[in-house]
Amino acid sequence: MILGDLAKRKISWVNGGGIVLSTRARIARNLHDRYFPSRADASALRDVFDCTVSAVSGIPQFSDASVLKLNALDRIDRHLLMERHLISHEMASLKRTTDEQGVVFTADEKVSIMINEEDHIRIQCLLQGLATNSAYLIASGTEDSLGNVMKFAYSRRYGFLTSCPTNVGTGLRISCLLHLPAMVLTDSIENLLNGIRKARMAARGFYGEGTKPIGDIFQISNSTTLGATGEEIVHRFDRVVRTITRYETEARRKLLKESKHKLEDMIYRAYGILEYARSISSEEAILCLTKIRLCSDLNINLPVNSNHVDQLIFILQPGHLQEISNRALSPEERDIERTRLIRERLFGTGDIKRGKQK
Amino acid sequence: MILGDLAKRKISWVNGGGIVLSTRARIARNLHDRYFPSRADASALRDVFDCTVSAVSGIPQFSDASVLKLNALDRIDRHLLMERHLISHEMASLKRTTDEQGVVFTADEKVSIMINEEDHIRIQCLLQGLATNSAYLIASGTEDSLGNVMKFAYSRRYGFLTSCPTNVGTGLRISCLLHLPAMVLTDSIENLLNGIRKARMAARGFYGEGTKPIGDIFQISNSTTLGATGEEIVHRFDRVVRTITRYETEARRKLLKESKHKLEDMIYRAYGILEYARSISSEEAILCLTKIRLCSDLNINLPVNSNHVDQLIFILQPGHLQEISNRALSPEERDIERTRLIRERLFGTGDIKRGKQK
Repeated sequence: MILGDLAKRKISWVNGGGIVLSTRARIARNLHDRYFPSRADASALRDVFDCTVSAVSGIPQFSDASVLKLNALDRIDRHLLMERHLISHEMASLKRTTDEQGVVFTADEKVSIMINEEDHIRIQCLLQGLATNSAYLIASGTEDSLGNVMKFAYSRRYGFLTSCPTNVGTGLRISCLLHLPAMVLTDSIENLLNGIRKARMAARGFYGEGTKPIGDIFQISNSTTLGATGEEIVHRFDRVVRTITRYETEARRKLLKESKHKLEDMIYRAYGILEYARSISSEEAILCLTKIRLCSDLNINLPVNSNHVDQLIFILQPGHLQEISNRALSPEERDIERTRLIRERLFGTGDIKRGKQK
Repeated sequence: MILGDLAKRKISWVNGGGIVLSTRARIARNLHDRYFPSRADASALRDVFDCTVSAVSGIPQFSDASVLKLNALDRIDRHLLMERHLISHEMASLKRTTDEQGVVFTADEKVSIMINEEDHIRIQCLLQGLATNSAYLIASGTEDSLGNVMKFAYSRRYGFLTSCPTNVGTGLRISCLLHLPAMVLTDSIENLLNGIRKARMAARGFYGEGTKPIGDIFQISNSTTLGATGEEIVHRFDRVVRTITRYETEARRKLLKESKHKLEDMIYRAYGILEYARSISSEEAILCLTKIRLCSDLNINLPVNSNHVDQLIFILQPGHLQEISNRALSPEERDIERTRLIRERLFGTGDIKRGKQK
């Protein structure tokens, strides 16, 4: 565990409120003269790693960047990085790590490069709210800068080549984390997800591919990377996300009209659980947090700071809990520790001092 | 609805804390020269009613007593009386009421006489905590005073005669409301209830015969009324109740040792629900209240007044809610109103004023 300081920092691309929590643009690239990571030997992978770090050092934005090699990190550190969306679920879950895999990320964590995961490099830009264009521009700007010193595998016919064919072409994946409780409560979510698939977009879980949604938060992303320019892909994706947010807004309006009392009760109870539970799973905690996320939209006057709520959605996980407590915790201990963190961040107290004796 | 004032009064025989919430002694009697209520005509029943009220007027304890005829009361009033344990579940649920049925009760509600229910009269004494002897002495003292002016049906062979053979002999039913959460949580309650039945006692629900337990509160009473004196019955019953409380105390000690965190979490969550719910059924409310009843025993420092908690267990019911709001409420409205009453009585506020904005 060496990432305690990182664990205590706010996540800069999380800032509370809104249907779209965050936008992510990711560009996959591979060096033209090295095998893809799954076939490359250690020496080739080391070249990729060194070459990337050296290329990054020339980019002003990366002047304060952190360079982390997976081998220097334990499982808890890697979980922390995954919880901050700096490395993938796959990289965090690796049984064997090597010295040639790692991640570079800027001081504000908004731009990062994962090295030698499925592809040689995966450039990522994460921004708060709906910001497809900016995220794409920043990611592709970084890709341009790297392209000045690295030569990427490219085919005239297919475009940029990637380890998995689903990324060939632009290598671009653009995604948003969307909070869709009203679509879930009105049983419209399945229809929506079907519609999303028909629009050739994918709906995934909280940590992307292979993970499940938590607390009515869905990751929506483009499925196709081929046959269109990056700009076209981003534009099309942006339109789909705006449509989804309109549906969600409409569903919230309907719910508020038809079931205000039920909604209020649901949100207040979630608040009560967060304030008083003395043991809570991350799943239940996130469910409660995403419920109280709704209070401002529904004109419910609960004393919560929406940025604190959203930060907690990301950091109530095992990696953060253990780094913040600076020790390994059993699942039971984590469930207890999680409630302390909630009370501290959300209610400004580790213990109940606010009750009145009658 | 004419019992709003009564609804707002504290219940004097409820005073918070302890495994035994209350003790009740009930004595059934019938006039020797009238048919039992199920066979008597209106004129005979009127005689019984008038004769009882007149007899009662001579007892000093009843100088400020209330005399209520069922016909003057609507369903809500009768429910209120049942919720305060002044009339039986059966009497409250009657489809047709008459002018000859009713109840007389002292100003402190500790002594009451139900007239023309199953028997001509049912004398009841209700006291807080474990007080079998006092409850019995007060009830039989009242019976003595009435016996000076009324002649009761009596057989040399069987003792006092009652409408149902299960009450013949002493006509005495002594019972306690016991709060046995630890026996329930440790899965020992079924064994305990079997043991109680073997000791020829009965375990019943919250409102006695034909009702179900709510929130781990059980009514334990004697089953046999024949073949022993009142004193013997009371003594035997008292011994059984003391044994049960020892089991419960032991089970609480064990739970506290083995699952302190789980218990704390359970109790704090119940507190959170009571503070924040905006709609709650009486069953869930009582479950939560009975959980926070445990906090003093488990050294959990929650700002609750145990008498307020116990009062609420009895008055969160439809009768009280409607009398207090002074209007008929739909079940949905009651669930909302119930949370207001909880906030007012338990937290001293109808709304949340105590949260801190961070």
